[in-house]
Amino acid sequence: MKRIAINTGGGDAPGLNAVIRSIVLASHQLGWECWGIRNGFNGILEPEKYKNQGGGIKPLSLHSVKGITHLGGTILGTTNKGNPLKFPIQQKDGSFIDIDRSQEIINSLKDHAIDALISIGGDGSMNIAHALAQKDFQVIGVPKTIDNDLDNTDATFGFDTAVEFATTCIDRLHSTAEAHERIMVVEVMGRYAGWIALHAGVAGTADVILLPEIPYDINAVAKKIFEREKSGSHFSIIVVAEGAKPLHGNFSIIGKNIGQSERLGGAGDKVAKELEILTGKETRVVVLGHLQRGGMPTANDRLLSLRFGAAAVRAIAKGMTDMMVSLHSPNVECIPLADAIGKRKTVSLNHDIILTARELGIYFGDELSFIQE
Amino acid sequence: MKRIAINTGGGDAPGLNAVIRSIVLASHQLGWECWGIRNGFNGILEPEKYKNQGGGIKPLSLHSVKGITHLGGTILGTTNKGNPLKFPIQQKDGSFIDIDRSQEIINSLKDHAIDALISIGGDGSMNIAHALAQKDFQVIGVPKTIDNDLDNTDATFGFDTAVEFATTCIDRLHSTAEAHERIMVVEVMGRYAGWIALHAGVAGTADVILLPEIPYDINAVAKKIFEREKSGSHFSIIVVAEGAKPLHGNFSIIGKNIGQSERLGGAGDKVAKELEILTGKETRVVVLGHLQRGGMPTANDRLLSLRFGAAAVRAIAKGMTDMMVSLHSPNVECIPLADAIGKRKTVSLNHDIILTARELGIYFGDELSFIQE
Amino acid sequence: MKRIAINTGGGDAPGLNAVIRSIVLASHQLGWECWGIRNGFNGILEPEKYKNQGGGIKPLSLHSVKGITHLGGTILGTTNKGNPLKFPIQQKDGSFIDIDRSQEIINSLKDHAIDALISIGGDGSMNIAHALAQKDFQVIGVPKTIDNDLDNTDATFGFDTAVEFATTCIDRLHSTAEAHERIMVVEVMGRYAGWIALHAGVAGTADVILLPEIPYDINAVAKKIFEREKSGSHFSIIVVAEGAKPLHGNFSIIGKNIGQSERLGGAGDKVAKELEILTGKETRVVVLGHLQRGGMPTANDRLLSLRFGAAAVRAIAKGMTDMMVSLHSPNVECIPLADAIGKRKTVSLNHDIILTARELGIYFGDELSFIQE
Amino acid sequence: MKRIAINTGGGDAPGLNAVIRSIVLASHQLGWECWGIRNGFNGILEPEKYKNQGGGIKPLSLHSVKGITHLGGTILGTTNKGNPLKFPIQQKDGSFIDIDRSQEIINSLKDHAIDALISIGGDGSMNIAHALAQKDFQVIGVPKTIDNDLDNTDATFGFDTAVEFATTCIDRLHSTAEAHERIMVVEVMGRYAGWIALHAGVAGTADVILLPEIPYDINAVAKKIFEREKSGSHFSIIVVAEGAKPLHGNFSIIGKNIGQSERLGGAGDKVAKELEILTGKETRVVVLGHLQRGGMPTANDRLLSLRFGAAAVRAIAKGMTDMMVSLHSPNVECIPLADAIGKRKTVSLNHDIILTARELGIYFGDELSFIQE
Repeated sequence: MKRIAINTGGGDAPGLNAVIRSIVLASHQLGWECWGIRNGFNGILEPEKYKNQGGGIKPLSLHSVKGITHLGGTILGTTNKGNPLKFPIQQKDGSFIDIDRSQEIINSLKDHAIDALISIGGDGSMNIAHALAQKDFQVIGVPKTIDNDLDNTDATFGFDTAVEFATTCIDRLHSTAEAHERIMVVEVMGRYAGWIALHAGVAGTADVILLPEIPYDINAVAKKIFEREKSGSHFSIIVVAEGAKPLHGNFSIIGKNIGQSERLGGAGDKVAKELEILTGKETRVVVLGHLQRGGMPTANDRLLSLRFGAAAVRAIAKGMTDMMVSLHSPNVECIPLADAIGKRKTVSLNHDIILTARELGIYFGDELSFIQE
Repeated sequence: MKRIAINTGGGDAPGLNAVIRSIVLASHQLGWECWGIRNGFNGILEPEKYKNQGGGIKPLSLHSVKGITHLGGTILGTTNKGNPLKFPIQQKDGSFIDIDRSQEIINSLKDHAIDALISIGGDGSMNIAHALAQKDFQVIGVPKTIDNDLDNTDATFGFDTAVEFATTCIDRLHSTAEAHERIMVVEVMGRYAGWIALHAGVAGTADVILLPEIPYDINAVAKKIFEREKSGSHFSIIVVAEGAKPLHGNFSIIGKNIGQSERLGGAGDKVAKELEILTGKETRVVVLGHLQRGGMPTANDRLLSLRFGAAAVRAIAKGMTDMMVSLHSPNVECIPLADAIGKRKTVSLNHDIILTARELGIYFGDELSFIQE
Repeated sequence: MKRIAINTGGGDAPGLNAVIRSIVLASHQLGWECWGIRNGFNGILEPEKYKNQGGGIKPLSLHSVKGITHLGGTILGTTNKGNPLKFPIQQKDGSFIDIDRSQEIINSLKDHAIDALISIGGDGSMNIAHALAQKDFQVIGVPKTIDNDLDNTDATFGFDTAVEFATTCIDRLHSTAEAHERIMVVEVMGRYAGWIALHAGVAGTADVILLPEIPYDINAVAKKIFEREKSGSHFSIIVVAEGAKPLHGNFSIIGKNIGQSERLGGAGDKVAKELEILTGKETRVVVLGHLQRGGMPTANDRLLSLRFGAAAVRAIAKGMTDMMVSLHSPNVECIPLADAIGKRKTVSLNHDIILTARELGIYFGDELSFIQE
Repeated sequence: MKRIAINTGGGDAPGLNAVIRSIVLASHQLGWECWGIRNGFNGILEPEKYKNQGGGIKPLSLHSVKGITHLGGTILGTTNKGNPLKFPIQQKDGSFIDIDRSQEIINSLKDHAIDALISIGGDGSMNIAHALAQKDFQVIGVPKTIDNDLDNTDATFGFDTAVEFATTCIDRLHSTAEAHERIMVVEVMGRYAGWIALHAGVAGTADVILLPEIPYDINAVAKKIFEREKSGSHFSIIVVAEGAKPLHGNFSIIGKNIGQSERLGGAGDKVAKELEILTGKETRVVVLGHLQRGGMPTANDRLLSLRFGAAAVRAIAKGMTDMMVSLHSPNVECIPLADAIGKRKTVSLNHDIILTARELGIYFGDELSFIQE
């Protein structure tokens, strides 16, 4: 009999609950017990907050995970704050210093007779998991990033749901864009990698897609819109990843000057405002934001989450530690956490989807490709 | 045999295409012909723009309306600009004066041997339809307002779709709000009437709903959030109609001063920023904006649109003019356009849904109700 | 302080959980307590079955109704069996006799110190509720019928969700029907009233709709399909209510004889098989069946359910009994249960939707209308 | 300048229109022209049928593919009949003989000055494409099978949409199953391979999944249901692939005899009827059938379809022939048609998803695994 603790950290993603349920069910089949830690590691580090809730770490019954596979969020709660490796502690003079509290976590887990930890989260969480595993405790990581930008797994859960939702939203904007002959700018998630923008933009038949990986020339985008006008298409759909960046740090716009772009908001707002000035066309922006993180996971994401959860339990059963489950289609395997940390998968310029998009006439705002056409 | 012209004006709404298809099919059954006018009345008033598109007014074949019942937008295009009663014409000195060009429309319709006009649009469009009907031309109006704020019909199409979508979005935010213990503010449409906020807010189990009809006290909203904290609910969902307004024109916040609220953006941004200051809790805002106008109409909206279209043709066949179709459940009837114009239906404070919401513990930000509790 | 019992009876419908949650929340605001009875009245009548589940009647905490507004089904369970007015009891000789056990229910409720009962269900359940109210117990009914065939309320919850789903399914079949030039027959719910078939059929742009209220001539339907072929439409969508019936009890088919229609299955199967014989076209049938009862309720159905639940609590608070909540738009009112029982609302032949459908060229299989065309 | 012909064959699948649009757009970017063949090759083989439709093979304009990416079906039509390699021709005596008409197709394509053919379809269509490529004509195949059972590509379009829909349907049935304490049997597609049943069954948290690859013992399934009853779960969800088969050709049921199972219908009906007899529990069956083939493709399927279409044009441009596009993640490559034909990918018993499912307690009806538990 083993007792496993589970926690979820970082931004929430559709599929977290499916992973939790999978771990609890698979453990139950082995006769094991599961405990859940609240809000990252805060259930352990700030136990007083959870006094009225039965404690910051408590058993997870089969009943507690019933019917949660298709629910967004995480029944354990999550947080972006309170990294136990650099936990901010207020000093007497009011200032904060960061303290490594990882040993407290290990101690608490041992106090609760926990044998192993399954930690579900993004790159930051995997880092913490790796640190805990160094302290002679059995730890398995389950990777989560809605942006799909983790290098050592074919896919992460949450991404498929985000792409599906973003695509549906682009669909919705098409009819309005066309009916009103407007430019519609849609900002989607993707600070460092443009996977959501690329997948949803192509699937949603956007006209222009702006990614963090391809700095854009706003004048060239405006030209593309004028070209569309000439060919009888009086509207355009522009999908912008939140991390998209202009080609020139401080760009100048030929013909019109948009001045110091003070307070333009996010990437989408910026692109919209500039295009309205440059093209003279009515332009509207929609920022999908947190809508992309919630909702019922797609069948794909549920399946991947369930597989990851079961694989994590399997790894515990095999005595593995300091490892992360990872999809190497068609298998789920385990790789060392040390190998998984800090490696980002970005969109390469010669990826087949980029190639496809260009062949379909979708424009990425890069000067070169535009001149080539 | 008759020849009917159709146009769509104002903001687009799910169901416009279903109305158009219904008019074309019902006309076809009677052996009539339909013509479509592009972009409001611009197809007639600015014909040069449509030269390459076969003209600004042209026949609508059965084929042209095939498979459009469930598509958002309008195949005729629409616009918020170019009111023919006050059409802006640029003078030699660069200034604009507004000219009544309604007679040109009548002339053009007669030139094309059109017998009657069915005009689909909001209050502005019904006003124009009424003016045209005064000029001895057969005109029937079909009301459209996604905000559901028209007084002389039980319902207008587009509203149900907007409410359904907004509710789904609120669902998506719930899981994130709870997982991260955040305040989530969702801004929905409704400049003068809060129907979308009220319906979606109650159906989506919001905690606070702010409507144009009930000025809100932001301090009281913050208190409500603190109350929820105390009872163990560490998150809150706030639905804000875009027309929601604070109780005091220039409010002061007891304890904390949020200063001159410079550049706070829309109603949702404002509420979010103030709540973050007042409560100290992480707060995020999502503005649904144009997403609410697009997309596939719900079955309800399709049905209502099809009924309105058929009823408009029926009215033409009966020789009616200067009338508007209108839902008086379970019937669709015709009322004089003059009676329909300019009458807004807002949420009354003793509406059964308001009552229900209060009984469920939903708070509207009104000082009084809060003190009562 | 009051203690209210809630039960759900009959076939499940989307919205039941929303009603339950609404009752619990509204009661909580009044400082009352709610108890839930399992599986109709079986939790009381067969208590031994629920021993391991904490009893067949037990308190409903606020926590127990958290997050259930948008879930299908009913957390209390439901059943079509075990009518307490005619409860089947097995005799020693193996035969069954029906016994009125309503007094046992009253006794049990009183034993549990319950002050009032809110009973949610169809016509059968309202009948039982009425009987219980005769025994000097406070009872309020909440009507539920997915078929929308109850006469004394503008609408019942579940119907909107069923129509929306059925319409989406018809959409899905359109593309296949057209791609393969087939006849697609879709059987939807509606044993005695054709509301779902009518609403979904019109919204989904079916070509033929067969209702219980309009006996159909299968030969005339075949003729309609041939007409469509001639006009270039090589596919047809036929929506059939499960209660649709042929015009002639024992029909003969001119030209072809389909013989004794042995073992044709349900209404949809029958229509499909006959049309395939009569037209020679590939025909496929899909029976939506139980898919129509499940799933997340639409925003409309959630709102109606929440309103009904709150209104039931309001009625209890006002001391009403032997009444049923009912939608008289825009209000929810109470009517005597005695007036509500046994009155079915069917589709009248001159309903505006029927009229609309005919004007759009949709055919109902009635000989007369076909000849007229 | 090249002129390319496109055709679609076999059962329809979500994504066909996206492939067509992708081919037309990518060709347009190269200055090429596209023509479409109607209903498989029937547009060429039975030209008289298409006289009134502008011919059985005709140009595809940019306009003709506008807005079709997200539509189900195929604008070209498709068919399962009329294999040109074995085309059934009626003889004078009424009998049919099969004739190879492939040369007629080549001749017709050449007559229309077509340079190359892109043929989209299943295994049968790829066979035909290969035969045509032997006749000195440039041919590229695009694989389509909703069952995902093609061995030489990581994925085929349509599968993801079918799985997503089937999962949603299983979700819908859960609430009813639980509310009524019933067994719900859902039959999904998959005659030879159980991919849809496996993916949707696991994602939809079925209790039992029956696949063509794992013959099932109906008694063991009944035992599993009894086990669930004992542990307090009074309902079960059984997902059955249409090709699922019992372990013993002519099985006997211990204890109860269900006799010669005359006329039990499909795999789902058979399982439902037998389980109802064996367990005595109310059992309902839903056959998803053609609903799985239609509808809007998921973002995934749209993306894959667009990639396949663009890759096919790329292959033509490179002078390739007798090849099929195929997904080898993350790339789309070309493999010889000869290598692709006739190789089916079935579910292997040690596939990670099977393993995951067993670890979660899902049962496949195989005697062995059951005894092991």
